[in-house]
Amino acid sequence: MLWLNMFDIIGTMVFAISGALAGIRKKLDLFGIITLSIVTACGGGLFRDIVIGNLTPTIFRDPKYFVISIITSIFTFFLYPVLIKFQINSPIKNKLTVFLIFDAIGLGAFTALGAKIAITHNMTNLFSVTCMGMLTGVGGGVLRDMFVRDIPLILKQEIYASASAVGSMAMYFSYDHIPQIASLYISFFVTLILRLLSLKFNLNLPTIN
Amino acid sequence: MLWLNMFDIIGTMVFAISGALAGIRKKLDLFGIITLSIVTACGGGLFRDIVIGNLTPTIFRDPKYFVISIITSIFTFFLYPVLIKFQINSPIKNKLTVFLIFDAIGLGAFTALGAKIAITHNMTNLFSVTCMGMLTGVGGGVLRDMFVRDIPLILKQEIYASASAVGSMAMYFSYDHIPQIASLYISFFVTLILRLLSLKFNLNLPTIN
Amino acid sequence: MLWLNMFDIIGTMVFAISGALAGIRKKLDLFGIITLSIVTACGGGLFRDIVIGNLTPTIFRDPKYFVISIITSIFTFFLYPVLIKFQINSPIKNKLTVFLIFDAIGLGAFTALGAKIAITHNMTNLFSVTCMGMLTGVGGGVLRDMFVRDIPLILKQEIYASASAVGSMAMYFSYDHIPQIASLYISFFVTLILRLLSLKFNLNLPTIN
Repeated sequence: MLWLNMFDIIGTMVFAISGALAGIRKKLDLFGIITLSIVTACGGGLFRDIVIGNLTPTIFRDPKYFVISIITSIFTFFLYPVLIKFQINSPIKNKLTVFLIFDAIGLGAFTALGAKIAITHNMTNLFSVTCMGMLTGVGGGVLRDMFVRDIPLILKQEIYASASAVGSMAMYFSYDHIPQIASLYISFFVTLILRLLSLKFNLNLPTIN
Repeated sequence: MLWLNMFDIIGTMVFAISGALAGIRKKLDLFGIITLSIVTACGGGLFRDIVIGNLTPTIFRDPKYFVISIITSIFTFFLYPVLIKFQINSPIKNKLTVFLIFDAIGLGAFTALGAKIAITHNMTNLFSVTCMGMLTGVGGGVLRDMFVRDIPLILKQEIYASASAVGSMAMYFSYDHIPQIASLYISFFVTLILRLLSLKFNLNLPTIN
Repeated sequence: MLWLNMFDIIGTMVFAISGALAGIRKKLDLFGIITLSIVTACGGGLFRDIVIGNLTPTIFRDPKYFVISIITSIFTFFLYPVLIKFQINSPIKNKLTVFLIFDAIGLGAFTALGAKIAITHNMTNLFSVTCMGMLTGVGGGVLRDMFVRDIPLILKQEIYASASAVGSMAMYFSYDHIPQIASLYISFFVTLILRLLSLKFNLNLPTIN
């Protein structure tokens, strides 16, 4: 349970950061940035809880998620100018990349968590577990992008929802054979690495001209 | 039940096509197009299931809907250039029209299905049945339009939600008097014909200048 | 119960007006305006009912909310040109202000109502009650803004979600000590006055350049 909490907290924090960065890019003020952080960090879990019928959803019963989101977004807001200075000499060239990396970590953590929760809620087939992993993983980011009027990343980035799907499957197939915490790590890293590889090599698929 | 399934499958297919066409128009790549097809084809049923408390929603328990959406969108993607060639000599002049016709068929099929499911879930008043028909009929299209940042069709097109409302009422009033399958067809064709007529005659209502 | 109904009806009416005004600004036709009014007026209650597990949500069981929204939006549509004429000589200078005032009244009424319903649904902690007040208060407006592709007010306006939060807390702390109707009024006016003050003095918070 402790380990589960850790994934929960890390996922919440990095998605809060990704929400804050999206808000900064859109020149929102501090309150807007905090709100967007909450929406991004809590949206995936909200969707998952509604869909599995866990009502009232956890995020409205346990203040932890809001508190973490608020504190994280305030930190991000005030540390951002410092981070940017460092970045000039760093291999990571632009703001978008930093944003995408945090988004990728959140995708991994929440995918692992969502798939795990689906299994502990007695979902026994691969399809349902994969759906819950993906919904938890991508839900917050989709809400974030819709709030600031971007086309959601899952529509623009090839290996996004599919990284989450593969990560969820990794949870499903490993769950009965290894310790739970190992399943969580495997699911997390499979999702994260697939996503980062797709960013690194800028994998593209055909479009119609 | 077989007939109910048929409406379900046809509705899923045509909304998957409409999602794919919307994605092609927005120059998304293949993965984005597939994702948008799934969202469009499964969104209406998802909303309906949440609202009637049918949790976990069917689309997350039965892989059928995802599989149909994926296959349909891939077909649409690769057949699109062929279709466009034929279209040059056809009476249907533009891409938007093709998109709107598929959207209209989906609206009809899902309206009939949603109203039917409401009745079989013991909703006994006209208002609730109409709401469920409309929610199922328009839900996927609204999500599709919000994902690609269009103003939803139900806001721009006069006889859209209202066609779905009339079609749902047709189900409600016919249900006790004729075979179920006949009710489904009536509801489907009432919605579809109203919608196509409004497209054909470009019915407009007053706006404020 | 009568008083509760009054807040419900007033909230529905003013949010229907705010939805209609948003539709008029976006040059939607009458049907689009009616639809947007329904979405705005019914969205907050819909979210709240889903989240507390009150399924099927009230708005789909009781036609009252749709009927009020439709009638209000039609009135708004036809009275709008008259209102505009008067406005030329009034201290309220622009259309946006009128829209924001109606939105603020709706925010107050639905915040009070949502917080009250949370308490009567046996939510006993401050956090949950505040969340339900905010969700009910801001939900419809967020949907409205997303439908017409504006960045939601809660992201752009500093004292928006926070006014709703403070108003919800006012309900929580006053509920056990004074008559229920007094709690409703306090919650309503706290939210409304905070929101109007922030509009009046155009309170701004830092952004990053």
